[in-house]
Amino acid sequence: MSIAERDTLIKKWLSEIKDYIIDQKDSNLDVEQKTADNDLVTRMDKSIEEQLVNKIREAFPGEKIVGEEGFGDEVNSLDGTVWFIDPIDGTLNFVMQQENFAVMIGVYVDGIGQLGYIYDITHDKLYSSTKGDGVRCNGQPIAKPADLSLSKGLIASSSALMCKDKYPAVRTVGAESLGVRMLGSAGLESIEVAKGNVSAYIASNLKPWDIAPGLLFMEELGMIGTQFNSKPIDLLNNNNIVFATKNAHKDIIDILGE
Amino acid sequence: MSIAERDTLIKKWLSEIKDYIIDQKDSNLDVEQKTADNDLVTRMDKSIEEQLVNKIREAFPGEKIVGEEGFGDEVNSLDGTVWFIDPIDGTLNFVMQQENFAVMIGVYVDGIGQLGYIYDITHDKLYSSTKGDGVRCNGQPIAKPADLSLSKGLIASSSALMCKDKYPAVRTVGAESLGVRMLGSAGLESIEVAKGNVSAYIASNLKPWDIAPGLLFMEELGMIGTQFNSKPIDLLNNNNIVFATKNAHKDIIDILGE
Repeated sequence: MSIAERDTLIKKWLSEIKDYIIDQKDSNLDVEQKTADNDLVTRMDKSIEEQLVNKIREAFPGEKIVGEEGFGDEVNSLDGTVWFIDPIDGTLNFVMQQENFAVMIGVYVDGIGQLGYIYDITHDKLYSSTKGDGVRCNGQPIAKPADLSLSKGLIASSSALMCKDKYPAVRTVGAESLGVRMLGSAGLESIEVAKGNVSAYIASNLKPWDIAPGLLFMEELGMIGTQFNSKPIDLLNNNNIVFATKNAHKDIIDILGE
Repeated sequence: MSIAERDTLIKKWLSEIKDYIIDQKDSNLDVEQKTADNDLVTRMDKSIEEQLVNKIREAFPGEKIVGEEGFGDEVNSLDGTVWFIDPIDGTLNFVMQQENFAVMIGVYVDGIGQLGYIYDITHDKLYSSTKGDGVRCNGQPIAKPADLSLSKGLIASSSALMCKDKYPAVRTVGAESLGVRMLGSAGLESIEVAKGNVSAYIASNLKPWDIAPGLLFMEELGMIGTQFNSKPIDLLNNNNIVFATKNAHKDIIDILGE
């Protein structure tokens, strides 16, 4: 199957998932805590991942799947085709707000991003990329953002980085920017960088499925995604990440490295 | 003119302002993409305030106007009818993102909120209140949010409070909540509290026009708006404010007062 055909098929799946979420979102979500009060999983997260995993296994038998909720595979290498699935990114928002969450899919081949999808369900905006074709919103190409330096743009970050003291340098980064925005969804914040609404997104301890599609978006738009120490992101492990314009990335790494 | 007639007239004005912003924003987009010109936006803020002030003076001669851009009056007392105008709340977002900003109007009589409007222009969502009638979104009543405690809900705050050290207790509040969200617009964050998307909004040094309509929303929804020290908000001066559910407000004041 060609990349274009895969893209068409994945978009069909995502459209089905959207209808399912809209239909089910006012029903009982069976909210459970995973590791903390603010680390939640719902019946919907599990069901959506299971549906996607079943579709992938039927259409692409033998390809590897890295999923948040455990329906995928044990993946120890990025060789071959690897799917990254986040059925609901921003589950806390999903539970508390019934909006501001995203469904995310990334497809990598031998560690290289090929296809990426971040679907803002309640606003019905699907951001997608096939390698070499840039980033599109509902099929329309989005412009490459201006290469703003840190001091000339807004940034996005996470509540944990702002309120807790593990990486205080991130607050310094925030203070040197025009201002910090926080949406509570790595997917939606990756979109904000891709659109140029913010010049950077800084977050700690993100999982591979939080990162995979956004990292492809960065590459497609001439922006940069690395770890805090500027090393390449490792999609087999958790990462502290910076997605940013080239100029802001340099400024941010300088501060984080101090 | 009755309150209902005022409400109808103000909504007509806001609809005209929306059309003006959408029209001007698109026609000037090329210029902004080249230079991110602050002058243009300053001209927009001023133009919108001037239009609103002229409409108010024509329809309601003698009533007092407190406006961000200086077209209003010197107001030293809340006696009589006082209008609070914020032509573009979230100007930085307007410049950098062309979204996530609001037009705000509040009308108070002898210091008591009578009419409040927060218009999220790009999403075309007008949140409004006439005293005693609750809060509506595009005319439809919104539900009173659950009275969540601090630890059971998300909160909204500001970049300055998170990144700078003037009120470090606000970060403690954030860490005790489920998480912090930041949109960069007092108006949009007031809406988030009104909708129950967050249980509190905490911000420092807000101007009367940033506060006036949201404070009425809090009163209409059985929530609370005060200063950090729990004193009533003073609409003749800048305020450090907490908008919150009753339970979260108590928890927050306990922490801020420590």
